[in-house]
Amino acid sequence: MKQNKYDDNAFFEAYGQMARSVQGLEGAGEWHAFKALLPELQDKRVLDLGCGYGWHCRYALEQGAGSVVGVDISERMLQQARSMTDDPRVKYIQHAIEDLELHSESFDVAISSLAFHYIASFGDICRKVFKLLKPGGEFVFSVEHPVFTARSEQDWHYGEQGERAHWPIDHYQEEGLRDTSFLAEHVIKYHRTLSTYLNELIGSGFTLKAVNEPLPAEELLLRHPEMSDELRRPMFLILAAVKSS
Amino acid sequence: MKQNKYDDNAFFEAYGQMARSVQGLEGAGEWHAFKALLPELQDKRVLDLGCGYGWHCRYALEQGAGSVVGVDISERMLQQARSMTDDPRVKYIQHAIEDLELHSESFDVAISSLAFHYIASFGDICRKVFKLLKPGGEFVFSVEHPVFTARSEQDWHYGEQGERAHWPIDHYQEEGLRDTSFLAEHVIKYHRTLSTYLNELIGSGFTLKAVNEPLPAEELLLRHPEMSDELRRPMFLILAAVKSS
Repeated sequence: MKQNKYDDNAFFEAYGQMARSVQGLEGAGEWHAFKALLPELQDKRVLDLGCGYGWHCRYALEQGAGSVVGVDISERMLQQARSMTDDPRVKYIQHAIEDLELHSESFDVAISSLAFHYIASFGDICRKVFKLLKPGGEFVFSVEHPVFTARSEQDWHYGEQGERAHWPIDHYQEEGLRDTSFLAEHVIKYHRTLSTYLNELIGSGFTLKAVNEPLPAEELLLRHPEMSDELRRPMFLILAAVKSS
Repeated sequence: MKQNKYDDNAFFEAYGQMARSVQGLEGAGEWHAFKALLPELQDKRVLDLGCGYGWHCRYALEQGAGSVVGVDISERMLQQARSMTDDPRVKYIQHAIEDLELHSESFDVAISSLAFHYIASFGDICRKVFKLLKPGGEFVFSVEHPVFTARSEQDWHYGEQGERAHWPIDHYQEEGLRDTSFLAEHVIKYHRTLSTYLNELIGSGFTLKAVNEPLPAEELLLRHPEMSDELRRPMFLILAAVKSS
């Protein structure tokens, strides 16, 4: 059984309170970096893996995408996405990303935001996306950074005054399941090393184009000084790759 | 003035006691991973940046390299290298890597072991190596991992019993100079993010081929159980790239 945490009532409600759920992409600290790595979307066929509320799908529509397929395992997320989207160019599919079957070479661009660290095998995803993309197609995705996922605790080390002393790393080379806590719920995530993310991508036939370990946008840092802790350790990893034609 | 720590007497003597100085490549925990990323060296023209005692140069000669140029800023390191090497195919040059001027497209393979984190601009190195390599040439190098270089202390966080509690990260996004301690001496190193290493390489025209965050070889782990701490955080980063022809 694939994890479908977002169909859990309490989790879904708590997720709905997050800035990224209420404000959409502008409420997501890493969006400006993700957006900068996206190719031109005009007339493109776009696949969004783990589309959630559909924010990225609607962004692609705004950019003139020819068609968009959003995939998510959670029926509740897709209900929300459908209620927020009114455009015949988009199709939402309820499916586990790992088991998705679509026509080969039917997309120009595949994107995914913060979904793959919930999935056990990243290699399978790479091979699937490579197959689904047309030659020259681009793959842009974000995950929680290996520095962030190494320990199950996913939290700072606190000093004697309760201050954030530093970010602790441990078990980095031990890939696999992490029983983490997110929005006051148990959530299974998978830790992988940076090497695994990059080598699986390259091994599937992709050419790496760019890497970003995003900082909060400057205006966010000014408005929320506590976000400067984000400069102390990387939380997200964004990779952009191309299926060489 | 470029840092030339290895011509400092005390530092040079202390370095001479390290396993990698006494035993050569087999005494270096990451060598098995580095070696695995090297291309076939038979008849190749090889450049070694920061060659030190010349271990990698002699390895290239053993593998049948046509010629080898070893570059190091330290005269004492090169004296040692020359005294250990007796082969007309090798040439040792005393020079700062950053200022090296050689004929364009004159090498098939460029390697560097644990030298670039002493140099301020990694982008300059990438552009230089790209120019020196022939089309299709390969570039394989190791550096201290960004997880390792982020804090100047470069040390574990210790618990109340003096045990290694975890590896602390801080200041990750603040690139630049780190005044570190190595072999009981002050040594200037430069911290860069993983994104900078990869994007500079790609931006210079290289295609990334493979990434390795090496673990100690299994026989080393068996002989030295204390080395299992190396599984807890990455210490080195090895990148292999090709100048696409």
